[in-house]
Amino acid sequence: MTLTIEDARLYVRLGTHYRQAIRQGTLPPGARMPSVRGLMALHGVSMSTALQACRWLEGQGLLEARARAGYFVAAAARQGQTPRLPPAHEPAVAAPVDAARYVGVHQKVSSVLERALRAQVRVNLAGAVAAPDLYPLERLRQASLRVLRHHALHLVTPSLPGGEPSLRAALARHALEQQLQLRADEIVVTHGCTEALTLALRAVTQPGDVVAVESPTYYGLLQILESLSLQALEIPTSPHTGISLPALREAAARTPGLKAVAVIPNLQNPLGAIMPEAAKQELLAWCEAQDLALIEDDSYASFYDGPGTLRPIKSFDRSGRVILCSSLHKILAPGMRLGWMTGGRWQQRLEMLKYSQSRPNEALAQLAVADFFKAGHMTRHLRGMRARLAQQREQMAEALARHLPRESRMSLPSGGLSLWVELPEGSSSEVLFEAALAQGIRLAPGAMFSNSMRYDRFLRINCGLPFDAQLREAVACLGRLLAPQRAHL
Amino acid sequence: MTLTIEDARLYVRLGTHYRQAIRQGTLPPGARMPSVRGLMALHGVSMSTALQACRWLEGQGLLEARARAGYFVAAAARQGQTPRLPPAHEPAVAAPVDAARYVGVHQKVSSVLERALRAQVRVNLAGAVAAPDLYPLERLRQASLRVLRHHALHLVTPSLPGGEPSLRAALARHALEQQLQLRADEIVVTHGCTEALTLALRAVTQPGDVVAVESPTYYGLLQILESLSLQALEIPTSPHTGISLPALREAAARTPGLKAVAVIPNLQNPLGAIMPEAAKQELLAWCEAQDLALIEDDSYASFYDGPGTLRPIKSFDRSGRVILCSSLHKILAPGMRLGWMTGGRWQQRLEMLKYSQSRPNEALAQLAVADFFKAGHMTRHLRGMRARLAQQREQMAEALARHLPRESRMSLPSGGLSLWVELPEGSSSEVLFEAALAQGIRLAPGAMFSNSMRYDRFLRINCGLPFDAQLREAVACLGRLLAPQRAHL
Repeated sequence: MTLTIEDARLYVRLGTHYRQAIRQGTLPPGARMPSVRGLMALHGVSMSTALQACRWLEGQGLLEARARAGYFVAAAARQGQTPRLPPAHEPAVAAPVDAARYVGVHQKVSSVLERALRAQVRVNLAGAVAAPDLYPLERLRQASLRVLRHHALHLVTPSLPGGEPSLRAALARHALEQQLQLRADEIVVTHGCTEALTLALRAVTQPGDVVAVESPTYYGLLQILESLSLQALEIPTSPHTGISLPALREAAARTPGLKAVAVIPNLQNPLGAIMPEAAKQELLAWCEAQDLALIEDDSYASFYDGPGTLRPIKSFDRSGRVILCSSLHKILAPGMRLGWMTGGRWQQRLEMLKYSQSRPNEALAQLAVADFFKAGHMTRHLRGMRARLAQQREQMAEALARHLPRESRMSLPSGGLSLWVELPEGSSSEVLFEAALAQGIRLAPGAMFSNSMRYDRFLRINCGLPFDAQLREAVACLGRLLAPQRAHL
Repeated sequence: MTLTIEDARLYVRLGTHYRQAIRQGTLPPGARMPSVRGLMALHGVSMSTALQACRWLEGQGLLEARARAGYFVAAAARQGQTPRLPPAHEPAVAAPVDAARYVGVHQKVSSVLERALRAQVRVNLAGAVAAPDLYPLERLRQASLRVLRHHALHLVTPSLPGGEPSLRAALARHALEQQLQLRADEIVVTHGCTEALTLALRAVTQPGDVVAVESPTYYGLLQILESLSLQALEIPTSPHTGISLPALREAAARTPGLKAVAVIPNLQNPLGAIMPEAAKQELLAWCEAQDLALIEDDSYASFYDGPGTLRPIKSFDRSGRVILCSSLHKILAPGMRLGWMTGGRWQQRLEMLKYSQSRPNEALAQLAVADFFKAGHMTRHLRGMRARLAQQREQMAEALARHLPRESRMSLPSGGLSLWVELPEGSSSEVLFEAALAQGIRLAPGAMFSNSMRYDRFLRINCGLPFDAQLREAVACLGRLLAPQRAHL
């Protein structure tokens, strides 16, 4: 059997999908793997791809072939592995949050942030940020010093519209890895992904308009919507495969004023969900048919540690329907606040809005990062960071499984900074937040990620910090705090 | 006669007012100075103040006392001085631009900028920006290097909300010189004054609202208004004393939806006008009575080279009515894009909007500038820069007087980067712009500074560049281009 490169890409992707399910316990040891014909029908792949995927999993000791019965999950597949919570539940697709029932998230988020700032925090599990030592500080410092030694004139010269050409060229080259074809002059450098999202929303909406978002979603996006007097239409979202397209279609049909969809298709914040490529294409086609703008935050794709790379929806866009927003502050340098975007059919309007909102970014950070890219450090840095994060996620997942109540559940994404934890029925993450804060532990309660209260039973847990005894003790403390909380019910 | 400090401040201010008039030729040699009683009545000062002002001018050789006849402008007052155009006309107060007749300025400005970018520009008279060598590049570079050597961790650590404490403290201390009492935590560091103005307008308006502005005014402000779907109500503004309060009152009375007044009271861009302190207080009281927000752009006050300092309106504000927006990119470092603001009663909303729009500024530039302030370099830098700019303004004013048509007029402000030039009746600065661009000379036509066409006869001329033979030849070229332009009429 001869495999093309395309076939190879397909069977590894298919295999990874099932490896994830086995590792998470969705397919427990002894469970029957779908048959080769079943896989062909379910995933629309050829027999050779289905067969190769099973053999690939078998080669890793995750499946066992039984004569005339097909493949089964190996008894040893999770043996000797770390304990693991079962995966978070899929959402009820039927119940998107009605835009009309919109409650401002800003006050909720501010209140959480303020209480946290007033407390003595020893352990911060609330952020979605990695420890400084996961970033290439010394290389960035040297690059900045070089720029100041050789090209300091930029300090006293107005910055260039759109951004520094060297950085825009480096970003365009980097985007090629995600199968994204961009010219450097199609990229606008922004003050972080936050400014990019603000500009994107300003470009395609008027106050009062409705924007469909994942539920739960990054609270910063909800704050932007609120500050622009936009309404968030929260669409049920799977912790595994992202926004529910049936729910989106249903909600859109009964929501006047819907102008845009804003999603994080790759390693969604807070869920870690990854939209399958077919779903990305389906969403794009649907936005096209509905004449909606599609705003995509792709800040986390470089954290993916599965095979291949995650494509942004923009890479499928042929008509300029997608505004892609991304950044380097999560993956390279939290303190340099470099974001970027490309605006498709709204490019000119975005350039005008960027100019009128904050003028071009200053040059120093741009030039330093361009130097870092040029020296070829980016690929190596990302490889190292992904490995560190994978280890930290595993360690945190293990600690949570050991210490949280048995009925807890959790998403373990294939990359990124966070875990999404589902506490047992009757728990309240806001109550837990207060109790934990009194112990010096800061949490991000699920309620921050929605205008509804439907995520009060959830927590986003940061895995950006090296897992040490203090973190382990903090997780144990959460377990102790949750026990009496549940006893009250 | 005993003078208090307050008296001394008054007579120097009064004297400066007349010195300006004499230097500009408004009071030509031989003209009679108003009598002491006349000065008392006109300016509401005591006899001792009026008398001291005259003696102060006499001491400078600008006035001569004639027995029993009073003071006259000395014959030598302008003798040996440079030729000078008469001052620009006062505006017709009766005709504010109707907000309903609003025409977007963005397209006009973009078109001007784009045509300029496509051309081969040898001499740029269009900006309001100083040459790099007027800025303390080496000190800023050293300060940045120090920060990178000793405190580089900020590169990989999220920035602090509101800005770096050391910079906010330095800005608060610096503001004291303008009689402005601010706590460091009342200051929000922004991406330039542009972001500050955007945030201020977002805080106090909704799309469709009307904002009163000076006419002409900085085109960047008009672009922000347009991008936020706000309407600019343009109020006639004196090239000498700023916005006309009678015109503002009259326009406000017949304009529904007016929510804010946005002014540049000190060295207005493009006019160079300075609002007298009494007018600042009157505007504030009126905004108070009308319940309007007062947004103040004070980016240029440090360029003032008269006696004393120019107070921002904010320094008179007791009720939190004024949002002060300012910046360091004009006066210290064009490439570091540091702005700041303080929001009075809207402070909390501004902090929220800043956070949701672009997150806190990155730390490096803030720490470097705080270091520069701390080393005490700011005062010396500003003194040197003011002197350089004064010389350049004088040289440009002289060249314009020599080369422009005789009927031209011009404001010569007591500081800043620009001259506002009024061309003879029938001239068009847009026509001149095109003709000059063909000669490699870039201009800022008056039409950029208004939604109306009433400033087509005006030019803003940059004095930020060292005056050299090339600049002189460029001005001569403008004179040649204007001659045939007028002959057609």
